[in-house]
Amino acid sequence: MRSYLLLEKIFSKIYYLDSAAAILHWDAATVMPSGSSEARGEQLATLSGLRHEMITDIKVRELLAQAEIDQKLLNAWQLANLKLMRRRFLHANCIPEALVKELSTAGTKCEMVWRDTKKTNNFSAYVPHQQKVLDLVRQVAALKAESFGVSRYDALLDSYDPGKKSAEIDRVFADLKTFLPTFTQKVLAKQKKLPKPILAKGPFPASKQKKLGEHFMKAIGFDFERGRLDISAHPFCGGVPGDVRITTRYDTSDFTSSLMGVLHETGHALYESNLPEEWRGQPVGDAQGMTLHESQSLLIEMQVCRSSEFLEYATPIIAKNFAGKGAAWTFDNLKRLYNHVEAGYIRVDADEVTYPSHVILRYEIEQKLINGDMDIADVPSAWNKGMNDLLGVKVPDYARGCMQDIHWTDGSFGYFPTYTLGAMAAAQFFHAAKKQNPDIQKGIKKGDFKPLTEWLKVNIHRNGSRLTADELLKEVTGEALNPEIYKAHLKNRYLA
Amino acid sequence: MRSYLLLEKIFSKIYYLDSAAAILHWDAATVMPSGSSEARGEQLATLSGLRHEMITDIKVRELLAQAEIDQKLLNAWQLANLKLMRRRFLHANCIPEALVKELSTAGTKCEMVWRDTKKTNNFSAYVPHQQKVLDLVRQVAALKAESFGVSRYDALLDSYDPGKKSAEIDRVFADLKTFLPTFTQKVLAKQKKLPKPILAKGPFPASKQKKLGEHFMKAIGFDFERGRLDISAHPFCGGVPGDVRITTRYDTSDFTSSLMGVLHETGHALYESNLPEEWRGQPVGDAQGMTLHESQSLLIEMQVCRSSEFLEYATPIIAKNFAGKGAAWTFDNLKRLYNHVEAGYIRVDADEVTYPSHVILRYEIEQKLINGDMDIADVPSAWNKGMNDLLGVKVPDYARGCMQDIHWTDGSFGYFPTYTLGAMAAAQFFHAAKKQNPDIQKGIKKGDFKPLTEWLKVNIHRNGSRLTADELLKEVTGEALNPEIYKAHLKNRYLA
Repeated sequence: MRSYLLLEKIFSKIYYLDSAAAILHWDAATVMPSGSSEARGEQLATLSGLRHEMITDIKVRELLAQAEIDQKLLNAWQLANLKLMRRRFLHANCIPEALVKELSTAGTKCEMVWRDTKKTNNFSAYVPHQQKVLDLVRQVAALKAESFGVSRYDALLDSYDPGKKSAEIDRVFADLKTFLPTFTQKVLAKQKKLPKPILAKGPFPASKQKKLGEHFMKAIGFDFERGRLDISAHPFCGGVPGDVRITTRYDTSDFTSSLMGVLHETGHALYESNLPEEWRGQPVGDAQGMTLHESQSLLIEMQVCRSSEFLEYATPIIAKNFAGKGAAWTFDNLKRLYNHVEAGYIRVDADEVTYPSHVILRYEIEQKLINGDMDIADVPSAWNKGMNDLLGVKVPDYARGCMQDIHWTDGSFGYFPTYTLGAMAAAQFFHAAKKQNPDIQKGIKKGDFKPLTEWLKVNIHRNGSRLTADELLKEVTGEALNPEIYKAHLKNRYLA
Repeated sequence: MRSYLLLEKIFSKIYYLDSAAAILHWDAATVMPSGSSEARGEQLATLSGLRHEMITDIKVRELLAQAEIDQKLLNAWQLANLKLMRRRFLHANCIPEALVKELSTAGTKCEMVWRDTKKTNNFSAYVPHQQKVLDLVRQVAALKAESFGVSRYDALLDSYDPGKKSAEIDRVFADLKTFLPTFTQKVLAKQKKLPKPILAKGPFPASKQKKLGEHFMKAIGFDFERGRLDISAHPFCGGVPGDVRITTRYDTSDFTSSLMGVLHETGHALYESNLPEEWRGQPVGDAQGMTLHESQSLLIEMQVCRSSEFLEYATPIIAKNFAGKGAAWTFDNLKRLYNHVEAGYIRVDADEVTYPSHVILRYEIEQKLINGDMDIADVPSAWNKGMNDLLGVKVPDYARGCMQDIHWTDGSFGYFPTYTLGAMAAAQFFHAAKKQNPDIQKGIKKGDFKPLTEWLKVNIHRNGSRLTADELLKEVTGEALNPEIYKAHLKNRYLA
């Protein structure tokens, strides 16, 4: 046990280093003066350097080996914890430091170039930088693949969704891919026959939007004694369990986007807040990965807050908050506003129906890129063809096409699929929750979220990283990720 | 050189750990949710634990020894830096970790007890806790005294004012002690004959007070691209060079205190902001100590901003900010408000004339406490006699007597004298500055602070910790701390 317990101490230190860094990241995105980024950069680099030293220490290697020999002494949580320690050790140790630094430098440079060239739609100036990043990521993927004994793409995937395999993603995405194009056209056709949603005329002062967001956050169970809501250019859920900090941005001409953004981040925040306290500081006590995290934000936003039940309860509160009267402030209109479908170019603006197509396209392309079957110069044609096949959309330029996302610029290949896997898991979890406890739906209609959040806490949040996303899904819903449930949800909401 | 350069790397890491902690401290005092202190405590404990590990590493001991052998290779700045590294190493290494922890635990406990017992004026319940802390600090002082080869009290003093000796303090405080009692009575007698200062009727909204504070901060040279002004219960100057964060609190019935508080912290902020950038991260690049830091805040607040020259320029701006008209908003009245003298019980409410007496009293008592010539139970009688002798004041109870300050509760003995040493140094620096550049006074009258801040930057701030406070004073003003200059300032302001 001694080796295992020493490892717990080391990983706890690493956790609190990360957790200090999380607050510094929040600060940088919300309140830090614009000229202070250099000082902040040095602080963060020092923390991450120390973290790297700690996790690559030879002592950790020895302790892991010893603890694995003695692993029969460990209980289930400890065993899961030890496995996650090994996983983190491998991720940190299998890449030479020089390669890590080269990728970090190339990624920073590529991101800068991307910001400029995207503005001018200058794909050819961007290509060499993105290709350089890709080449380095291919090296990383090859080393990780060897170390983890999985395919190159799966080795990258593991950073975002521990244990996930692309074979599993292929299975569910193939199903969606045959379903979505026809379904999307049906939804669009049906929508045409309905009244157009009306967006009320603003301005909607930020202070009033904030008040409304806070109202629903509190109702859902966000603890303002252990968290904050602030403003940042790109909304996120940051901070640490026990001090969760979500952000939003306010568009004074349109209150709808910030509200759903806040509810989305509230879903992330609930997950972080309810992680198992007795395992705080240990890998097994952390959030499991991006798929599960996204399932929690999308469960709150998409499954709950865009549903008829929620909007029935929320409509009068929203209308009252803005002193809104008339056709724009009815339940029917808000429901149409919040469930409007449109086949567009831009992923981040996409709705629930069209979003998966954006993701599937990126997933297919990035697999080819990592496997060496495609180079950056070949991306536009594949992209534009995919957008046409999946969404019937003609991409007008690079900026609104394959240059729209930041993810690849710093080498985050393998991230995209977690969005849609999270959306599907959200539907499946919520489906199970409603079956297991009928009070959940009844509660939402009245603004009582206790039955729902209690279910989420017990069945999902409190598990930390004890299981993989797939294992948890099976344990909680009785089956692996099942596209039928997601499709049923979409049909029910958009065609019923 | 190799050893010295390796030390620079290690101390740079320590600096950025401290600098991450500084932002986390600011966050805790300003924006952190009330329930998040546990998570924050763990983060800070982890950072300070790592810091301790780094500075007590055997490698540092070996590198220091080697670098000292090779020290003829170093230039003056490097040599000063090496000496400061040795000093930090000694402070960290001469105390066994168990004693550090015991003192930290006892200090935290004592501070908690103090908060409660002060409210109920219950001295006897507080005594054992404060005595425990004192006993532990005596042990620390004995170990540090041996390690540094100085007296016990001087060993503590060194933490707050590197290199300072109590013999030097005794010399200047003895002078002030004979001067102040008679002088104070003269000032009070003169003041009686003048019209009473009028405090305009509020409320003065926090937002307007903030605007005014920011106006003068900008005028004096605070860089809002690399700093912030926020609210906290206890005003301070925090953050790091390049990201300096000052705080204040607003009393909506009295605008005067926040304004001078902000200007005081601006003095601290200018010092931090102008530290030598080429030495950032090294001990020699840091602020020198509390005496010099306080000299910079008091130079701005006391020497500059409570002067006739400043108030002449500031009066119309202040009046306009609050749309104030009439007798309360004249230059004469604001000058009387900002230079009002009153012999009171409470140090933090004291004015420039009575403040040194509060400090001298504490200095004399804490020396006896550390030397073992007095125990906590004996403090009240010494305190009350001192208050009567120095200020002619009868202390009404413990809470407004020897239980008023937080400093001793966590063991910060040796801190108090730096307040008055700083005030005296401020007078001496400003005296020299005005002589060396007549544009400084002319500028202040017009609200042009460039000549002043440029002088401060070149003569004081840019020196970092290259010299001790006493050495710098001699280099810049041509003489050691001279009580005559401080006394002349007081006479000129309060009796002329």
